[in-house]
Amino acid sequence: MNTSIETQLIDGKAFAEKMTKEVAAQVAELQQTTGVTPGLAVILVGNDPASEVYVRNKTKQTHKVGMRSFMHLLPETTTQQELLTLIQRLNNDPDIHGILVQLPLPKHLDSDPIIQAILPEKDVDGLTAYNAGKLTLGHTDGFIPCTPLGCLLLLQQELSNLRGLNALVIGASNLMGKPMAQLLLNQGCTVTIAHIDTRNTEELARQADILIVATGCKELVKGSWVKKGAVIIDVGINRITTEENKVKLVGDVAFHETLGIASKITPVPGGVGPVTISCLLYNALSAAKKKK
Amino acid sequence: MNTSIETQLIDGKAFAEKMTKEVAAQVAELQQTTGVTPGLAVILVGNDPASEVYVRNKTKQTHKVGMRSFMHLLPETTTQQELLTLIQRLNNDPDIHGILVQLPLPKHLDSDPIIQAILPEKDVDGLTAYNAGKLTLGHTDGFIPCTPLGCLLLLQQELSNLRGLNALVIGASNLMGKPMAQLLLNQGCTVTIAHIDTRNTEELARQADILIVATGCKELVKGSWVKKGAVIIDVGINRITTEENKVKLVGDVAFHETLGIASKITPVPGGVGPVTISCLLYNALSAAKKKK
Repeated sequence: MNTSIETQLIDGKAFAEKMTKEVAAQVAELQQTTGVTPGLAVILVGNDPASEVYVRNKTKQTHKVGMRSFMHLLPETTTQQELLTLIQRLNNDPDIHGILVQLPLPKHLDSDPIIQAILPEKDVDGLTAYNAGKLTLGHTDGFIPCTPLGCLLLLQQELSNLRGLNALVIGASNLMGKPMAQLLLNQGCTVTIAHIDTRNTEELARQADILIVATGCKELVKGSWVKKGAVIIDVGINRITTEENKVKLVGDVAFHETLGIASKITPVPGGVGPVTISCLLYNALSAAKKKK
Repeated sequence: MNTSIETQLIDGKAFAEKMTKEVAAQVAELQQTTGVTPGLAVILVGNDPASEVYVRNKTKQTHKVGMRSFMHLLPETTTQQELLTLIQRLNNDPDIHGILVQLPLPKHLDSDPIIQAILPEKDVDGLTAYNAGKLTLGHTDGFIPCTPLGCLLLLQQELSNLRGLNALVIGASNLMGKPMAQLLLNQGCTVTIAHIDTRNTEELARQADILIVATGCKELVKGSWVKKGAVIIDVGINRITTEENKVKLVGDVAFHETLGIASKITPVPGGVGPVTISCLLYNALSAAKKKK
């Protein structure tokens, strides 16, 4: 008998609001006790509209929690050396506690040396080799990339204990899939990482208690791929145009098909997205606390 | 019909001998062209008999390829501070290109800060956060821990292309399982990491094209766990006493049960063990080359 279950939506927006309030309270406390105001520098090169939206949102939220925001909007023509020089200056600036380079950078720039030039203690995106290694080794004093950190926090809210659960991470990027796998492993999950070369993603998905999808392929994961009772975290944000010619956001999971099968799922929008920004603010606060 | 296949043994000893010869040739060339002789410092604290055997073997091989070996045999009573001071001195010594701390350290010492005190460019065991992160991010200029590097080299010798193969790594240590998973992921494998909390290791094993076992549990993996045609890398080295009261080495895989099922398997001894030491020599050579 193919009984259907009630699928709960994981409310990322509510979670993020609670987290942001907590960060704001801690920012105020830090200011009162030490006089330090956390400062976050955000670098955006070029005019990618999606990136502009993200950066604007980050700045807004930064102000909202009482931090200082330093926006660096650079022209598309910025050179590698100019960007490296800016990062060097921000590394040396005591008012800046966190540095974030909005990715992707324009094609003529080599992102990796730019990211690696950020001081590990200001690398609030957790993308330097040092912080990536801290996470791999299970050290808890490094910075964890914001999106996977947000996914973990949502999972921890929804599941009391992750130990022994089978988790499948689809997508193996340095920004998301790889650190996500490390986080789940550190929590005691049995972790599988699938990606573009994986031959049996569907079969692997059907075995997963936790399914985390970050592929950039809209609605890749079908309802038939989902194990009954699984918890799904959908990291994808894809813009589609509906029949009525409206722009709509959808995830990497065919959301409606999973209803009645998954036990919990993050909606798109309103799932992982808002939590990611809260995690960025949390990381910036941590950076300022370490420096106080 | 349950037809049996012919299982080939992966000859780690022969592979290691070839690799060691190649390293020796490159050491000689480096000396001739630059005057630099690679120097490897090995630190052993206390009198663990197994560690003493490993360290003696490493020293012997280091000499054999024409490198300098600096042995530091410290008493069981060595303090954390004494060890850190020694590492500082070795970090600053231009004749030392690689530093290796033989693990496990005696219980009163906190291994991690000691390992992390090693300069990343002398960390030939690949255990510092910086090198672990380089591997995670897919950078090729860091040091990779010797045992997983050895396993990868054996796999690459036996399989022309790893891309898309399902790999199961059993054991999730910082020294072996975690870097192994990263290496396989960087090669395009679909990677699962199982460990002490995994509930269905047997089932996962039966799906694996590549099975890498590093658990320290003698003969944990049974023949019935193995997919027909799988390639098995057995990292375990366990001492058992036979009925005739003789000491014998066995792996983490029930070797004889896999014959006729696996396509290839590393024997114990004579599989991964010898290659690990060759990889250490290779890493020490690389460290010296970078410094020349």
